[in-house]
Amino acid sequence: MKSKKAPASDVEDPAPEVSKKQRKRSARAAEKALELIEEVEEAQETVAEHVSAEAGTLAALLQVGPQFQLQDVDPRSTPGFAGTKKEGKAALAAGVEPMSELQERLFAEGLSGGERSVLLVVQGMDTSGKGGILRHVIGSVDPQGVSLTSFKAPTSEERAKGFLWRIRAALPEPGHIGVFDRSHYEDVLIARVGKLVPAATVQRRYASINTFERRLVDSDTTIVKVMLHISSDEQKSRLAERLDRPDKYWKFNPGDVDQRLLWDEYQQAYQIALTRCSTQRAPWHVVPADRKWYARWAVQQLLIDALNGLAPQWPVADYGIEEQKARLVAT
Amino acid sequence: MKSKKAPASDVEDPAPEVSKKQRKRSARAAEKALELIEEVEEAQETVAEHVSAEAGTLAALLQVGPQFQLQDVDPRSTPGFAGTKKEGKAALAAGVEPMSELQERLFAEGLSGGERSVLLVVQGMDTSGKGGILRHVIGSVDPQGVSLTSFKAPTSEERAKGFLWRIRAALPEPGHIGVFDRSHYEDVLIARVGKLVPAATVQRRYASINTFERRLVDSDTTIVKVMLHISSDEQKSRLAERLDRPDKYWKFNPGDVDQRLLWDEYQQAYQIALTRCSTQRAPWHVVPADRKWYARWAVQQLLIDALNGLAPQWPVADYGIEEQKARLVAT
Repeated sequence: MKSKKAPASDVEDPAPEVSKKQRKRSARAAEKALELIEEVEEAQETVAEHVSAEAGTLAALLQVGPQFQLQDVDPRSTPGFAGTKKEGKAALAAGVEPMSELQERLFAEGLSGGERSVLLVVQGMDTSGKGGILRHVIGSVDPQGVSLTSFKAPTSEERAKGFLWRIRAALPEPGHIGVFDRSHYEDVLIARVGKLVPAATVQRRYASINTFERRLVDSDTTIVKVMLHISSDEQKSRLAERLDRPDKYWKFNPGDVDQRLLWDEYQQAYQIALTRCSTQRAPWHVVPADRKWYARWAVQQLLIDALNGLAPQWPVADYGIEEQKARLVAT
Repeated sequence: MKSKKAPASDVEDPAPEVSKKQRKRSARAAEKALELIEEVEEAQETVAEHVSAEAGTLAALLQVGPQFQLQDVDPRSTPGFAGTKKEGKAALAAGVEPMSELQERLFAEGLSGGERSVLLVVQGMDTSGKGGILRHVIGSVDPQGVSLTSFKAPTSEERAKGFLWRIRAALPEPGHIGVFDRSHYEDVLIARVGKLVPAATVQRRYASINTFERRLVDSDTTIVKVMLHISSDEQKSRLAERLDRPDKYWKFNPGDVDQRLLWDEYQQAYQIALTRCSTQRAPWHVVPADRKWYARWAVQQLLIDALNGLAPQWPVADYGIEEQKARLVAT
């Protein structure tokens, strides 16, 4: 088979008109960018090595145990990270490459018959930074391997089906990282605070969630649950910013202020949900989130730890490599 | 309302043990990374300004017109770009920020009652780089605003429903960028070459597609259709690479060689589909794709052009700003 490389005929010369001088300047700039990127990456790795907790230790620091009290967690603290905002950003950047490779291996495994997947559940009050996690942590891996669901108030069809129905429908396929922006936990949070269902129903749901999650783990889904924990003051200032900047007006909703008036009730509902539903197989992690850069780094590390725990390997070929090489050469 | 900032009590000091010297080294490295990133971005912009076609001109260069002949397009050419691979990578990086902002504006518009959306349709032979477009172009915008669908062979349920059924189900919501990795065009490509349906059915489908796409455009979806055009030789070398690298075995499928034997038939099927279904409202673009870096840059520019054409604006507030500020202060 011959390749087709005939020159474009009826198309005008498509290259923009560029002088020799411009070409040179551009070539030098491109060269410089590549060199500097290497230096940047080295610097970022230096930061990550120096001020972040050892791999695998963060989950234990943030995990919700039996004695857990949400009010004892300082939303401005940075457990497992001894650096500043600038260092946090560098450490986050240093984590992109390892996370991407692990994700690609998991994806490859899924395409090759593997059943394993990861589910990241992200909860938090309004303005706690859920969107930033999606953008800055999840956004750095291949979108082909991610299934993201943002749960809004359930539709009447969904309400008719039992609260876990729409959750089941959104679970990640094998090899994927599923991400829930809000989740079935809203059914014991806003449902409780807003009295959307009878108290007895809320009570039953904690057990239903634990059973559901246990089965999910048994069917090879690793669940990473994170609550982004902000302070009331920080929420106030983030909402105020949305009212100050025309490029942020769309993020503000008058209902956010109504919800804010129920702050203490929500903290209490979180306290109950976090402790009742932090199980050994699917523990909750509370991530201090007044510092956005810390929360992003922490969630990235929790995901990297979870993926490292799975240790996905490149699949072996299920065909004869030499045979296929010979077939290919013959084409 | 008071913020809760009690110190963590029963949690051990979570900061890793870090010496003063380590702290200093890390702080310096973080500072350096940030400074260098600014320099990198400047250099990348210099490249983009110097060697790429003016905004808005690329679509015309790549567009399929009535006289179009696929065999006349050189897969190694780089229409609208006068630089090298290094410069191509720099120009792609320079496009991330403008594309992200346009995407966020479109997303905001969609959340505020706007109906507009963008649909990117990506077609191309095996190994033409569809996955790389998803990862390196689509992967750089906020995943919340993207709905990505990879179309595989239709299931029996899907086959029973008419070929556009599953396509309609995957259309982007208002404010979203929908991405089709393969699409309804497979129904006139593999369906034609593999004789999966009678010839008369294929014939009818071109018209159905044009009607479908016209209605889609009428309902405020901007369609950007790109065919990644590689040469047969390039495909051979990309398949060979997959057979040479254990981390790429999973990407190879013996069926790829079978499909390769039908190369000429596929080129012919593309020629027909491209010319019959390149309409004024939803034109096809053929992107030379033997150079991955060029194809990625070109698709990014086509998307930026499409988004610029929509010129999405930050939504105005549909609430009283001063009133809400007062409510917030009172909390």
